Amino acid sequence: MTRPQLTHIQIDNYGPWTVEPEPRREMDLQTLQSRLFADIAQFVGSRDGYAFFTRFDNMVAVTNGLDQADHELMQESIGNRYPISISLGTAVDPVPIEALEGATERVQQAGSAQDRGRREVLGGEYRPPEEGDVSIAHFDVNDATGKYTDRLNEFDSFIRIEQAYASLMRHMREAHGALSFFVGGDNVISVVPDMAEQEYLDAIDHVSDDADVELKVGVGHGPTPHDAGIDAKHALEDCRYDGTRVEFARED
Amino acid sequence: MTRPQLTHIQIDNYGPWTVEPEPRREMDLQTLQSRLFADIAQFVGSRDGYAFFTRFDNMVAVTNGLDQADHELMQESIGNRYPISISLGTAVDPVPIEALEGATERVQQAGSAQDRGRREVLGGEYRPPEEGDVSIAHFDVNDATGKYTDRLNEFDSFIRIEQAYASLMRHMREAHGALSFFVGGDNVISVVPDMAEQEYLDAIDHVSDDADVELKVGVGHGPTPHDAGIDAKHALEDCRYDGTRVEFARED
Amino acid sequence: MTRPQLTHIQIDNYGPWTVEPEPRREMDLQTLQSRLFADIAQFVGSRDGYAFFTRFDNMVAVTNGLDQADHELMQESIGNRYPISISLGTAVDPVPIEALEGATERVQQAGSAQDRGRREVLGGEYRPPEEGDVSIAHFDVNDATGKYTDRLNEFDSFIRIEQAYASLMRHMREAHGALSFFVGGDNVISVVPDMAEQEYLDAIDHVSDDADVELKVGVGHGPTPHDAGIDAKHALEDCRYDGTRVEFARED
Amino acid sequence: MTRPQLTHIQIDNYGPWTVEPEPRREMDLQTLQSRLFADIAQFVGSRDGYAFFTRFDNMVAVTNGLDQADHELMQESIGNRYPISISLGTAVDPVPIEALEGATERVQQAGSAQDRGRREVLGGEYRPPEEGDVSIAHFDVNDATGKYTDRLNEFDSFIRIEQAYASLMRHMREAHGALSFFVGGDNVISVVPDMAEQEYLDAIDHVSDDADVELKVGVGHGPTPHDAGIDAKHALEDCRYDGTRVEFARED
Repeated sequence: MTRPQLTHIQIDNYGPWTVEPEPRREMDLQTLQSRLFADIAQFVGSRDGYAFFTRFDNMVAVTNGLDQADHELMQESIGNRYPISISLGTAVDPVPIEALEGATERVQQAGSAQDRGRREVLGGEYRPPEEGDVSIAHFDVNDATGKYTDRLNEFDSFIRIEQAYASLMRHMREAHGALSFFVGGDNVISVVPDMAEQEYLDAIDHVSDDADVELKVGVGHGPTPHDAGIDAKHALEDCRYDGTRVEFARED
Repeated sequence: MTRPQLTHIQIDNYGPWTVEPEPRREMDLQTLQSRLFADIAQFVGSRDGYAFFTRFDNMVAVTNGLDQADHELMQESIGNRYPISISLGTAVDPVPIEALEGATERVQQAGSAQDRGRREVLGGEYRPPEEGDVSIAHFDVNDATGKYTDRLNEFDSFIRIEQAYASLMRHMREAHGALSFFVGGDNVISVVPDMAEQEYLDAIDHVSDDADVELKVGVGHGPTPHDAGIDAKHALEDCRYDGTRVEFARED
Repeated sequence: MTRPQLTHIQIDNYGPWTVEPEPRREMDLQTLQSRLFADIAQFVGSRDGYAFFTRFDNMVAVTNGLDQADHELMQESIGNRYPISISLGTAVDPVPIEALEGATERVQQAGSAQDRGRREVLGGEYRPPEEGDVSIAHFDVNDATGKYTDRLNEFDSFIRIEQAYASLMRHMREAHGALSFFVGGDNVISVVPDMAEQEYLDAIDHVSDDADVELKVGVGHGPTPHDAGIDAKHALEDCRYDGTRVEFARED
Repeated sequence: MTRPQLTHIQIDNYGPWTVEPEPRREMDLQTLQSRLFADIAQFVGSRDGYAFFTRFDNMVAVTNGLDQADHELMQESIGNRYPISISLGTAVDPVPIEALEGATERVQQAGSAQDRGRREVLGGEYRPPEEGDVSIAHFDVNDATGKYTDRLNEFDSFIRIEQAYASLMRHMREAHGALSFFVGGDNVISVVPDMAEQEYLDAIDHVSDDADVELKVGVGHGPTPHDAGIDAKHALEDCRYDGTRVEFARED
C-alpha cells in the first residue's frame, strides 16, 4: 500500500523579513528563494526524496527514507548558510493530502508563520524506509512545443499550461487527495494514492473540458519517490511512443 | 509613456535533453532550472531589470537598461557554466504582451525550441535607457497568513493562491495586455501598460468573484523595472497600513 | 586505529575544455569551480565527510561513511548539472597519504587527466562505516586578526598565512603522511594518522622557525570526519581560552 | 600607464560568527565561503573585473570599470542573501600593492575585522573607466599533467604547485609590488605593474631555483581586467605552441 511521508517546509517569519526595514530588492528575494529550493531539492533528492517549490516560502517534500536526523541536519545546514531559518513538520498517511495535513499541523501548532518567536520547529513522525511505497504520476502536455511554444508568444503558452495546471491540481486534490506540482516546461508531478486507470483518464478528460489542454500521464510505484518518479518518467515515454494517454510502469 | 523592453529566454532543445539517453533525476533537473533562474535573476536584477521563472525552460525578463552586449554576455556566461545553452529574443512596445510577442518571434524565426541545430539565438531591438519608462504592479493577498497559511494545510493554501493567480493572469492579459507572474508567497508582479485606478479595482473584483480571493495592489512607475518595482512595493505597504485596495506610488 | 577513506575527485579533461575553442572568461571558470566544490562539500558534508578544494580541478575528500552507491550518485548528479564530468577514486589506509595514493591510482590507471576518452571513472574500495575512526587536526594562527588582518594590507596578511601553510603542509606530509588543507581565514585542517602531542609541538615549532608564524592546534577523533572535526574545533577553542598550543578533544 | 583599481572585500566579524554559539559545521562554512566568492566573481566578472578568493573571509578584486554605485549594490545584494555582510575598501595606484594598501586602509580605519559594531564599510576612490589600463600576467606550469597529475598522488602534485605559488607570490610582491593569486589547476594570475620581459624571466628562474617547478607566462594589457586577462590567456597559448617562456599579447 502507498504510504507517502510528507514534509512541510516553511521559512520562519519570511513575509515581514522581506520588507524590514525597507522592501528588499525583488531579484535578491527571487535568487534567495530559488537557491534555497535548489539546496533542499539536492538534499532531499540525493536521498531519493522529491521536493517541490510550491510557494517558495512554503515548500512540500516527499521524504520517504529520510528520518528525523536527516531533517534536523537539513534545518541546521540551511540555518548556517542563509539569512533565514526553516521549520519542518512531517507526517505519514496513505492519502497524500492527509499526510500533508498532519505535517502542516506540526508547524502550525508551534505558532504562526509570522510569529517572531517561533523558529526552527522540527516535529513529526517518520516512516521506517522498509514500510510501504510511494506512487508518483508524471503528466505532460501533448505536443506542447508544436502547439504552443513554437507558435504563441511565451506568455500565451504559459497561460495554457498554467490553466491546465490550475484545473488538474484542483481535480486531483478534490477527487483523490493527490498533490500535484508544476515542475517546469509542460510537466506536472503528482503524489498520488492508489488510483485506477479510469481515474487518470477522468482527470485528463476533466482538464481537456475545463482548460482545453490535452494531457498524458505515466505512473510509477516504488519504495522511494525517486524510484517511483523514474518509473513514471519511463511510463510517460511509453505514452509518447505508443500514442497512449495513461501508462503504468511495468513492475520489475 | 510606458515602454517596457521584454526578453524571452529559452533553453535550447531542453525537453529532449532531459530524457536522453535516459530520463534524468528529477531533483537534478529542478536544481539546474532553479539555479539557472537565480543566475539570470542576479544578472538582470543587478542591472535593475526583472526576471521571472515562468516555465523555467522558458523565462521572461523586463530588461530596460540592458543592451545587446549585456544580453550577449549573459548568454556566453550561462553557456560557460551550464550543460545547456540559452536563446534570447528582445523587443520593445508600450503594451507588454506586444513586446513579448516581438521577443518570442525572434527566437521562433530561428527554429523550433526542439531543433537540435538551433543554438544561442540572439535577436532583437534594445531601447536606449533614457527613452520611456516601465510600470510595475505588485499584488498580494489580504491576510494570507491569517486566512490560509496558519489555518489550512500547505497544499490547500497553495490552491487558493494558485487559483487566484490563474484568474488574475488571464484577466490582466486579456483586458490589458499585461504580464503577471507569481513570485512566491502570496505575491504576483505584473508588467503593466498605463492603467487607471478603476481598472485595477476591476481586476481585483474579477479575482474575488472568480476565485474568492481578496487582493490589493501597489503600482509604481520608473525608468527601470527595479525603480518601478520598489515604488510598487512601497505603495503596497501603504495599502497595508491604510486598508486600501489600490495605491499608486507618489511621484518623487 | 585511524582508518581514513580518501576520495580523489578529478574533473575530466578540464584543462583543454577551459581553452577550447577559445579561452573562456576567467570569472566564469572561477564561478564554475567554486560552485562545483560547494556542491561536493554539501554532498559529502551532509553525510558527515569532509571535502577540500585543493586545486579545484582536482579535489580531495575524506569519505568515511560514504559507500560506492553514494559516490556513483554524486558523480551522476554533477554530470547532470555541470558542463563537465568528474572521475572518482577511493581507497582506505591508516596513513592518509597512502589512502590518497591508492585513490589517485584508481583514476590514473583509467587514463590521463587530459584523455578525451576517459570519462566518469568510478573505482576503489569503501570501508564499512563501523570499522575504525578518523583523526582531524584543526590549526589556526595565534591572533591573526590583531597581528595581520587589522595591520597589514590584505595581500601581505595573505602572504604570511600562505607561507605558513606551505611550510606546514610539507612538514606534515613528509614527517607523518598527513594531508593539510587551507580552508580559509587563518585555518588549516589536517587529516592525520595517530600522532603524539610532541609531534604536534614539533610541527608548530617547524612553522615558527620556517615561516615566522605562530600556530596552535586542536585534535579530534571520531567515527566520521565531521565528528572528528567538530571535536577538533572544540579542542581549538580550548587552546584559545587556556593559551595552550595543542589540545586533544576529551573522549566522550 | 597601468592604473589598477583594487577592492578589498572583508566579511564582517566572520571569525567569531563561525564559532558562536557553537562551532558550525565545517562543510557549511566551506559552502558559504565558496558560494559567496562565486557570487562576487559573477558580479565583478560580468562587469569585466576580476575577483580572487584569497583567504575567502578576505577577498581581493580588480575593479576597474566598477564605480561606487556598483560596489554599493554588490554589498546590498550580498547582505540580502547571506547570513553575513561585507565591507569594501577601494583605491587606485599604478603599483597594485599600493592600491591594495589604500583599499585595506579604508576598511581598517573603520574598525577591526572582529569589531561587532563595524558593518558594511564602503570607502574609497574609484577611477573613471577611461583613465589608464590594467596589466595581467597569467602563469602556468609546464606540462603539469604529464609531470605531476598523471604520476603523483593528488596531494604530492598539489604540494609542488603550492610551493611554486608560495615562491612566486612572494617574489612578485617583493620585487614588483604585484599581486599573484592561485586560481586552480596549475594557474596563477598576477595583477602587475609595467614589467619588462627580463623581469618575467627572472621570476620564472626564481621559482625554478626555489621550488624546482618550471613556469611560463602570458602577459596582457587592456582597459579592464577581463580584456587584459583574455589577452594574457592568448599569449600563454602562444607560449604553449611556440615553446617559449614569456609572451606579451600583441597590441590590437
